[in-house]
Amino acid sequence: MQSPRPQIRFEPSGRTVDASAPFSLLEIARKAGIRIAADCGGAGRCGKCRVRPVPETAATPPTAAEETLLGPALLAAGYRLACQTEPLASMSVAVVEAQVQTAFDDEVLQVLPPADPPAVSVTDLPAPAPGRPPAPSLWEEITRAASAAGGPRLGPPPPALWAELFTPNRAGRRAVWSDDRLLGLAAAGRPVLGLAVDLGTTKVAAALMDLASGRCLSRATAINPQVNYGADIMTRMAAALADETDRDALRRTAAGAVQALAEDLCRAASCPSSVAGPPLCPGRDIFAAVIAGNSAMHHLLLGLPVDELGRSPYRPVLRTALDLPAEAAGLDLAAGAQVFFPPIIAGFVGADHTAALAATGLMHSQGAALGIDIGTNTEISLAKDGRLWCCSAASGPAFEGARITDGMRAGPGAVFKVHIRSEALLLDVVGGGPAAGLCGSGLFSAVATLRRHGFLDQMGRFSRTAPFIDGQNVLLAPAGRTAHGRDLILSRRDIGELQLAKAAIRTGIDLLLAEAEIRPRQIGTVVMAGAFGTAVSPQDILDLGLLPAIAPAKIRQVGNASLAGAIRALLCLEERRNMDALAGAARYLELAGHPGFAQGFALATGLCP
Amino acid sequence: MQSPRPQIRFEPSGRTVDASAPFSLLEIARKAGIRIAADCGGAGRCGKCRVRPVPETAATPPTAAEETLLGPALLAAGYRLACQTEPLASMSVAVVEAQVQTAFDDEVLQVLPPADPPAVSVTDLPAPAPGRPPAPSLWEEITRAASAAGGPRLGPPPPALWAELFTPNRAGRRAVWSDDRLLGLAAAGRPVLGLAVDLGTTKVAAALMDLASGRCLSRATAINPQVNYGADIMTRMAAALADETDRDALRRTAAGAVQALAEDLCRAASCPSSVAGPPLCPGRDIFAAVIAGNSAMHHLLLGLPVDELGRSPYRPVLRTALDLPAEAAGLDLAAGAQVFFPPIIAGFVGADHTAALAATGLMHSQGAALGIDIGTNTEISLAKDGRLWCCSAASGPAFEGARITDGMRAGPGAVFKVHIRSEALLLDVVGGGPAAGLCGSGLFSAVATLRRHGFLDQMGRFSRTAPFIDGQNVLLAPAGRTAHGRDLILSRRDIGELQLAKAAIRTGIDLLLAEAEIRPRQIGTVVMAGAFGTAVSPQDILDLGLLPAIAPAKIRQVGNASLAGAIRALLCLEERRNMDALAGAARYLELAGHPGFAQGFALATGLCP
Repeated sequence: MQSPRPQIRFEPSGRTVDASAPFSLLEIARKAGIRIAADCGGAGRCGKCRVRPVPETAATPPTAAEETLLGPALLAAGYRLACQTEPLASMSVAVVEAQVQTAFDDEVLQVLPPADPPAVSVTDLPAPAPGRPPAPSLWEEITRAASAAGGPRLGPPPPALWAELFTPNRAGRRAVWSDDRLLGLAAAGRPVLGLAVDLGTTKVAAALMDLASGRCLSRATAINPQVNYGADIMTRMAAALADETDRDALRRTAAGAVQALAEDLCRAASCPSSVAGPPLCPGRDIFAAVIAGNSAMHHLLLGLPVDELGRSPYRPVLRTALDLPAEAAGLDLAAGAQVFFPPIIAGFVGADHTAALAATGLMHSQGAALGIDIGTNTEISLAKDGRLWCCSAASGPAFEGARITDGMRAGPGAVFKVHIRSEALLLDVVGGGPAAGLCGSGLFSAVATLRRHGFLDQMGRFSRTAPFIDGQNVLLAPAGRTAHGRDLILSRRDIGELQLAKAAIRTGIDLLLAEAEIRPRQIGTVVMAGAFGTAVSPQDILDLGLLPAIAPAKIRQVGNASLAGAIRALLCLEERRNMDALAGAARYLELAGHPGFAQGFALATGLCP
Repeated sequence: MQSPRPQIRFEPSGRTVDASAPFSLLEIARKAGIRIAADCGGAGRCGKCRVRPVPETAATPPTAAEETLLGPALLAAGYRLACQTEPLASMSVAVVEAQVQTAFDDEVLQVLPPADPPAVSVTDLPAPAPGRPPAPSLWEEITRAASAAGGPRLGPPPPALWAELFTPNRAGRRAVWSDDRLLGLAAAGRPVLGLAVDLGTTKVAAALMDLASGRCLSRATAINPQVNYGADIMTRMAAALADETDRDALRRTAAGAVQALAEDLCRAASCPSSVAGPPLCPGRDIFAAVIAGNSAMHHLLLGLPVDELGRSPYRPVLRTALDLPAEAAGLDLAAGAQVFFPPIIAGFVGADHTAALAATGLMHSQGAALGIDIGTNTEISLAKDGRLWCCSAASGPAFEGARITDGMRAGPGAVFKVHIRSEALLLDVVGGGPAAGLCGSGLFSAVATLRRHGFLDQMGRFSRTAPFIDGQNVLLAPAGRTAHGRDLILSRRDIGELQLAKAAIRTGIDLLLAEAEIRPRQIGTVVMAGAFGTAVSPQDILDLGLLPAIAPAKIRQVGNASLAGAIRALLCLEERRNMDALAGAARYLELAGHPGFAQGFALATGLCP
């Protein structure tokens, strides 16, 4: 009797396909039309087709090519190469390919530049001079040299650096210090690098910075490989709660994601002509990191228990900023490297939001200022006269393209804007090819456009007929003109999902304004962060009433402000203190169970300003 | 052909005996008359017959009894039970049996009592109250409870404590904090213990303290198990320099010695009736330690390189005080436990002397005060009006009974005082039995007595005949009246060793006085620390000119002041700052190569005040 074929579920797409050995995961994905990058065509040479199968035991053991191309840290974190791995049983496979850029517009930095003084200074180590009695200690010689170079008096060096610091062959090495702490030793001619990370539930974004110049060398985004433990964070926390092993796996997976990005970024930034010695690598060249994650990712990465974070009232065990050795975060950076974690404001207003608030300078805006970071949970902050109110709205994944009939993440093939010309729909598609689905801003644009042209009423019901309206669906594009060969549909249910998501956010804004006794017309600025918040049209936002009625010019769309905040904290210690002050000043408003919530929510479902 | 029998060298006695399997090390030692304590008679039940064989590979593998009685930490440090271990080849065996006391006079504390406030405070952890929104984090609940109990605001807890701290079952646990740092968690009904250690080249002394009451629960001394890498510290440093493996072994051996003492002390202090739960143990109950070692032991324990410490100008790599997690010192104490290392003054004026100086209050004496800790290297300090001068004299091991014909350490059988009645010698022996040898104070007493009665001239030559003087030897006791059945001898060469040792110390004192421009009659106090310095007669000291001519009443003999200083630093943070100030203020005078040394030394060899 033949055993049933293993089922392979690819994440984050969620597609499940039959498979049978001896096909590699890369071949299985290709047959199913799931794209996994592989520059070498699957020959086990480029190391790009990274995936993370769960359970690990359902995969064939790592090959020599994987040992070489992934290294021990990523293998330990469960990473595999799709071209080298065959399934032995059913499994879930996270496709975690990173998109790395070395040339980029600066949308990530459309925020305040970091302040002086820099977080890190570098001084030469004095050459050994053992012959002079009465001799001070070696360490005193080093601290005197640092002081002479304008630095502060250094505290005792951490044990992790002793071996390297007190070797007789230290000539040419440079001391890297931050405040009064020695962070590590850099060889002559090599850059001193820092890593900034925005650790999200679905995506992990990171930037590699030259700490001396403050220049960004490379930037990358990858799918959080935890997706195959559950797309949403509550499922992952439940897994962590139920099983110590899963908690540890989630921890290693999160650390592995950051480590993998760090390695990709170093590889992309390496320019052998200007850097002496071997290629850039995290374990040698990265001396500082800042990781801004939402509360759950923060806790999972650090191995902090999530039992209270996973149930009402969703409280974190620890909100305070942390400055830890890289090992404590499971990262393999330079010996002595420290990782800063900005403070958390509340269970659903995480360190990523703290970083975003600091980056956007919301606290220093004229008049009242609103900061919104839209995601599955939307963090909303309201600042006025040095005071800060925050809440989190359970907006769901609709604006990320999930739970929508033909929804997808923003990327090639995604409809991002919908027009109506002469009663016909026109679609703007990322990359210009045939449409494959609707991303969040496309969904928003479609509904706003239909509403402006009178095809939808305030309650989201169809109020006019049109050739493209068929029963409970809008036919955005017929099968013949789509990428997947099926009709591209916007259903009445999809419109309902948008209404709920939008209502959740608007209710949060309204309750926050009421709590702070601020009227909408007092709002001077609305800062919208995140992928959706940056891509969506301000006019659509206002027409559908996601925001109170304000002038469109007051809306600033700033991109990944969390990553920008992490970069700022990486480059400047003062920013870290700002974040502490900001988190300390924040008043958190719990929306669940708020007396005004139900009524406000019902009103806010209407599609109108 | 039979292979030659393995040679077993027992340390610190230095006796070498032939051996052959299947005899255990305990049996081999017994046959050779070397005492190793074994309460169970060698049945593998008491765990007392601890030894440390080198090389480890020359011994049979550990037995199940050893796994149980020694535990992984001590086995890793190379400890074995003599009754369970057989030699496979020649080896050196350190006999490290600890002498533990639970009832004692307080000679170790014949110094200043520690000041307030205590180093450690204990507060109850609040019971979990997860139901109250808007909830602060768990950590805030804990810090608020600590503040409410009168403590300061705590900094973020160390990662090592997260698991224990953030468990739902934390009811009844108590937070142990020092300054603004959480040190650990203690269960209800259990004491919060601290460990003070004086880490010497030959001996390791330790005290177990109840940090709440400041009471000493038990005290112990053991031979430093590094003795089988070389009795003197320069040999050990040479081993560390020559071989990375030896450096690591020396490190593990030093850590093992401290860990073994900690376990012995806990076992001795356990009183099941008053302590809830399992017996006291370092890994659960010791939250803080202070280790005061000489510079070489300090560096070897911490794995710091000793290449510059081992050769002129003998400089340490690091002098500053260190406050490290217990793991960094290779110790298995309670999770979160910290170990404080007092600052070093110079290569041969180590942290043990810093601790001794702080304990004796030398800096606060009226007038000029001299502090002397006599050993193989004798540390000498001179304080006046808040200033401090230090030097180290290479006095050699004569006062520890080494390099003396019938020398031995102070202990049962050691002659500690010599009288002359009617031209006959009378000996005072430790324990009252037959004499086995001369300890340092016995040597000193013998020479001073002979000199006072005119049998020796100023140059140490015999100047009168007597029945007990035979050629170049003094017959202290004939074979029939000694423990070992051989004549007990004081040779002319032994007297010469005393002259050299005494001259080294006296020259150091004189040069220090000259450097500080202080005349002998300005000296108000002489504090003598250490075993010899406490046991020797002040009159003998003055008659033989070890000290300048002062009134005998100005001499204070204080016992193990280094251990007392470690205890003080354990009990009071202010003491740690005092030590920092003291080490910072010290001016070190290098005697080697000093222009006045040679002439001063020649003069100081004379046996006269």
